[in-house]
Amino acid sequence: MLDLGEHFAKTARMSWNTFGRVLRFTTWGESHGPALGAVVDGCPSQIALSESDIQPFLDARKPGQSRFTTQRQEADQVRILSGVFEGQTTGTPISLMIENTDQRSKDYSEIAKAYRPGHADYAYDAKYGLRDYRGGGRSSARETAARVAAGAVARLIVPEVTITAYVCELGGDAIDRDAMDFSQITQNPFFCPDPAAAMRWEAKVDAARKAGSSLGAVVECVATGVPAGWGAPIYAKLSADLAAAMMGINAVKGVEIGDGFEAARLTGEQNADPMRPAGAGSNDGVPRFEANHAGGIAGGISTGQPVVCRVAFKPTSSILTPVDSITADGEATQVRTKGRHDPCVGIRGTPVVEAMMALVLADHKLLHRAQRG
Amino acid sequence: MLDLGEHFAKTARMSWNTFGRVLRFTTWGESHGPALGAVVDGCPSQIALSESDIQPFLDARKPGQSRFTTQRQEADQVRILSGVFEGQTTGTPISLMIENTDQRSKDYSEIAKAYRPGHADYAYDAKYGLRDYRGGGRSSARETAARVAAGAVARLIVPEVTITAYVCELGGDAIDRDAMDFSQITQNPFFCPDPAAAMRWEAKVDAARKAGSSLGAVVECVATGVPAGWGAPIYAKLSADLAAAMMGINAVKGVEIGDGFEAARLTGEQNADPMRPAGAGSNDGVPRFEANHAGGIAGGISTGQPVVCRVAFKPTSSILTPVDSITADGEATQVRTKGRHDPCVGIRGTPVVEAMMALVLADHKLLHRAQRG
Amino acid sequence: MLDLGEHFAKTARMSWNTFGRVLRFTTWGESHGPALGAVVDGCPSQIALSESDIQPFLDARKPGQSRFTTQRQEADQVRILSGVFEGQTTGTPISLMIENTDQRSKDYSEIAKAYRPGHADYAYDAKYGLRDYRGGGRSSARETAARVAAGAVARLIVPEVTITAYVCELGGDAIDRDAMDFSQITQNPFFCPDPAAAMRWEAKVDAARKAGSSLGAVVECVATGVPAGWGAPIYAKLSADLAAAMMGINAVKGVEIGDGFEAARLTGEQNADPMRPAGAGSNDGVPRFEANHAGGIAGGISTGQPVVCRVAFKPTSSILTPVDSITADGEATQVRTKGRHDPCVGIRGTPVVEAMMALVLADHKLLHRAQRG
Amino acid sequence: MLDLGEHFAKTARMSWNTFGRVLRFTTWGESHGPALGAVVDGCPSQIALSESDIQPFLDARKPGQSRFTTQRQEADQVRILSGVFEGQTTGTPISLMIENTDQRSKDYSEIAKAYRPGHADYAYDAKYGLRDYRGGGRSSARETAARVAAGAVARLIVPEVTITAYVCELGGDAIDRDAMDFSQITQNPFFCPDPAAAMRWEAKVDAARKAGSSLGAVVECVATGVPAGWGAPIYAKLSADLAAAMMGINAVKGVEIGDGFEAARLTGEQNADPMRPAGAGSNDGVPRFEANHAGGIAGGISTGQPVVCRVAFKPTSSILTPVDSITADGEATQVRTKGRHDPCVGIRGTPVVEAMMALVLADHKLLHRAQRG
Repeated sequence: MLDLGEHFAKTARMSWNTFGRVLRFTTWGESHGPALGAVVDGCPSQIALSESDIQPFLDARKPGQSRFTTQRQEADQVRILSGVFEGQTTGTPISLMIENTDQRSKDYSEIAKAYRPGHADYAYDAKYGLRDYRGGGRSSARETAARVAAGAVARLIVPEVTITAYVCELGGDAIDRDAMDFSQITQNPFFCPDPAAAMRWEAKVDAARKAGSSLGAVVECVATGVPAGWGAPIYAKLSADLAAAMMGINAVKGVEIGDGFEAARLTGEQNADPMRPAGAGSNDGVPRFEANHAGGIAGGISTGQPVVCRVAFKPTSSILTPVDSITADGEATQVRTKGRHDPCVGIRGTPVVEAMMALVLADHKLLHRAQRG
Repeated sequence: MLDLGEHFAKTARMSWNTFGRVLRFTTWGESHGPALGAVVDGCPSQIALSESDIQPFLDARKPGQSRFTTQRQEADQVRILSGVFEGQTTGTPISLMIENTDQRSKDYSEIAKAYRPGHADYAYDAKYGLRDYRGGGRSSARETAARVAAGAVARLIVPEVTITAYVCELGGDAIDRDAMDFSQITQNPFFCPDPAAAMRWEAKVDAARKAGSSLGAVVECVATGVPAGWGAPIYAKLSADLAAAMMGINAVKGVEIGDGFEAARLTGEQNADPMRPAGAGSNDGVPRFEANHAGGIAGGISTGQPVVCRVAFKPTSSILTPVDSITADGEATQVRTKGRHDPCVGIRGTPVVEAMMALVLADHKLLHRAQRG
Repeated sequence: MLDLGEHFAKTARMSWNTFGRVLRFTTWGESHGPALGAVVDGCPSQIALSESDIQPFLDARKPGQSRFTTQRQEADQVRILSGVFEGQTTGTPISLMIENTDQRSKDYSEIAKAYRPGHADYAYDAKYGLRDYRGGGRSSARETAARVAAGAVARLIVPEVTITAYVCELGGDAIDRDAMDFSQITQNPFFCPDPAAAMRWEAKVDAARKAGSSLGAVVECVATGVPAGWGAPIYAKLSADLAAAMMGINAVKGVEIGDGFEAARLTGEQNADPMRPAGAGSNDGVPRFEANHAGGIAGGISTGQPVVCRVAFKPTSSILTPVDSITADGEATQVRTKGRHDPCVGIRGTPVVEAMMALVLADHKLLHRAQRG
Repeated sequence: MLDLGEHFAKTARMSWNTFGRVLRFTTWGESHGPALGAVVDGCPSQIALSESDIQPFLDARKPGQSRFTTQRQEADQVRILSGVFEGQTTGTPISLMIENTDQRSKDYSEIAKAYRPGHADYAYDAKYGLRDYRGGGRSSARETAARVAAGAVARLIVPEVTITAYVCELGGDAIDRDAMDFSQITQNPFFCPDPAAAMRWEAKVDAARKAGSSLGAVVECVATGVPAGWGAPIYAKLSADLAAAMMGINAVKGVEIGDGFEAARLTGEQNADPMRPAGAGSNDGVPRFEANHAGGIAGGISTGQPVVCRVAFKPTSSILTPVDSITADGEATQVRTKGRHDPCVGIRGTPVVEAMMALVLADHKLLHRAQRG
């Protein structure tokens, strides 16, 4: 006998795993399921695409590459299951799959019973009435591999744009902006453009790792080559879509465009971005801005300047220090997280920030489309 | 003879003026058009609603109420044109209209020719090929009146939630958190919960106003009464939707949830939000958190703690100091904005932040729906 | 004291009043409210638009123009409240408003108590727990005025397309296709392209009107000038979007593309649409089709042939013959509808079909955009 | 050197492969790619789900089960890759994958060069500039396997509803409605509820198959147990969503709700659905309808009667008779389709119609949610 009331009580909590307006991607998969993936829909046809366009970005995000990230070992090999024919996109959905290989479920048995403070365990149970507790299930940062794969496709839609993300602050220790050198970003395990800071951070993260502690970080992302005119008032502002994209990354608690919170401390004169005509030596006819407090976006629409975004990652909630918590039955307990984890999740968040920037920009390019003649 | 190529070149730039997933609202209207408004769709039926539920919130945002805001005089009287029958919502779209009365187009004639630095003028022209230059047209903060009206409807969908926004920092001068008193918020023209700060700000804003300068501000918003379980992974996280909602407000450049950027400077131990069982004295059976660094959201889902959000407003771009700019023809010029303006747009942004919080929470309540149990 | 369970029980039923993917329009308004309207979002900028582009289409749909339609008298004057500046669209939302003038609420007092069979009264009550019973409220065909206004805007986005709808069958009496003459459509009160049929229908509808009865009709709509390539697999097929658009019109119970149900009775040979090269005499290089069973759509994408759609309107449910029904309290009663009504709602449905065709085509043109080079 | 104009010309054509409002599913995959699948998002948590809930519906649709359908041999084994934990849905996206095994690409080599009349070949090329010609690529009816898998999940969301689809007309030969017996549907290869008709159709389809010809069919679908109140005015009418769902199935050219086109031939009196009170013997308090011309939907909202829908499938376009066509270079040619194909695609369309009905009803149940108290 069907009890509808009972059934309805169960069918109450929905999900939402698609991002984008015309370039839409849907991700799926859990930390310890057989695989995870993304379906990218709305990608234009006739773009050359193969696994080798995607793999380098997954490799950059891959765990286990240095002692500063989680020691989980994943090949993170991507397979394209649809949407490509004879090396070109066909305009149909692109299905990307990454198999999970190193799942070690045994490490996570304790989580089944107690809520890890700072994690989504309690909130998921409150919402869904159950959760896949193995490695955090769907709330694991492992899901971001699917975003990085989708982001690699998005990059091919905006070849005129160069996107660079890097850690600009780690554990409260900021880079020296005068010492910034983008060529350094790939030369250290921290995506750090300042070699001196990278050296300091090595000691910092090592200490945190050994103490079973964790650190936060700020990731900055700069996109050059974005023409004026991308974005759409009022509720699809480029800035608003970037904010949603970045705040949706695991462990992110803050987003800034341009000067961000610092702008709230400036006067109108200090915050002004004066403009100049294209000038005699210009070969593109584009006006010059003499400052970029706005981070390349005014009224939600790109101005032609570099789009600049900053993203705050909290410290990983998984720490060895016991923290008061409760069990699923509501009893008092203490939780210390012994499993593998990133001592600073912001580091591996860097390629994810890049991917989300690419996805938002590609979406808005397709929304905007035609160049003015 | 129709020239399709020509026509196509013109038809290239789209817009997006709807926000929300199941509670969706669409706003329309320009600063100097005949009216502006919002259509709220997805509002449940059988909720008591009349103009008097909306007007107080519009009044709080209304210009010309003190010497610290723009001197434009608008009655901002809202009319409900549909969706209500015999005092109750019917489940059909609620059309809200506010007529513009004090438009004074003459003040804005100069903008037609030159781009105001920091404003959306140049970006709109780049996108659309033309713009309604009167008072900023659609990019004017006047559009936020429509959001405040829609937000008042949203509040009625979440009567269990109390939403309070206030300015916590103005021109770099922060409130004393130990002196915070919510009852003070309505007692000064700055939505300031700290009377001593309010007094300092009076001098600050007066000076800026007289100098034709402007100031930034940070608005904080706290929502209590949100049960655990609202929000939806992955791309409809409560935090991500709040980020989009807040970053979409005019002049906003940064958004934080909970500790925000400060969390990036904490260790995992410092950032932990320990939990305790409901306890003997509890009359609701809800677990207790001993801290709220997370701002009431974990994994994108509410935890039952207060939802806390901070929003950075840049200083108004309209200043009397001449700033280098260009004309629509690309010639060098200088612009100083003589028209009426808010010396600190963050002040009147406060009711808008509250409205957006209400709209996001109502949307997620409707997405979540049934209570467990 | 707030009873949340009680409140929740009330907040259960949502609405959805927006149509379209990138050209999105939202309608609002009830039959007997102060006004109704549409907000058109996503319309490209720089299109010349004034009320005079919209009014003729509203006039074609207007009630009270002949004795064959409802005698309600409405001026149906449209006002553009936003989105147009100096005669051109700005890319921002276009708010269109039509005030209701002849509402005569007294005619509808009986409906408050009993459910009119065939009308949406019972279903609305079942969904929303209440309804605006005056003239059917939101379920009134009066809402279609807002669609016709929005459709007039859509036409300007697809100037290369010619859209013609006409009644091809009324009360089971079909036109003679050999006698079809599009110039006749505006020469009779039935949008009938066959003058002999129009004459027969005059008697038919007169008889129905006098008897307080009603008749059904089939409306056919042909769009020429649609290039090959509009539409999008799989769930945004041009055919699927047309089906939704047409089935969403009041009183519609069937939709066909091309041969429709007749195609189910053909063999593959009979149903084939052979193709020929553009040919020597061609001046556009477009291949020729020798038949159009497909109605201009294959695989959900336009083929370059005329897009052909047929729409079945049921007879108006408002009749003078008493029909068994129940009251809102569940008691047996009988209902006869004495108010003003259309004896054949399909007639005034014709401009609505045209409008929906325009809206779907404009949406898909914007989705498709660039012509292949 | 990047040629943006060139690049833009290529990036012009978008896709749309997601269906649904709150229960959304996205399908991906081509006829001859490695696999195809669906991602179902928005499914509530705590529903028991395993592959065995899905497989029977895929088996019903599977090719090669009788001589009346295509002889392609596919196991159509579904795998659940995410969204289920310990046998229950978790509220996270459910990824379903079906590997292609019998692809035989050689059969399709000719299609690469010439457009098959009636197929989507020409339209896809016109839209995307290229196509995966192997077996029709994305436009192949093989994609419907993914819908059937998604539909099986949807059924579990609406356990109170019984959905039955059957062929009611094949090649113009209709069933005898007085002889209808639902238990017969699974007893013949035609999903035919009338055994006498099934016998006649056997000869009919055999003859068509031997002649290399094809036949159309009409599929009827009845859903009982749908309570009053599902659906949503104006643009999410249950009828409109069903129309889109059904018209989006491959080869479908017409959709009817209730009496459909026949309703256009009735008078208001004939078309009325009188209502009666629940009556003394009633044990559910639900009013009775004495007819169901409306097909269970009024004003876009369910009435509590059976939801009835009819869907017209054109004859398969693949026939052995040569038909005039053109090559991709625009030259005249003739095409006859020698590969494996369904002589009557409507037969295997029957489980697809059921799946789409389930998906639309589940979506609307979740939109509607709470029962009135």
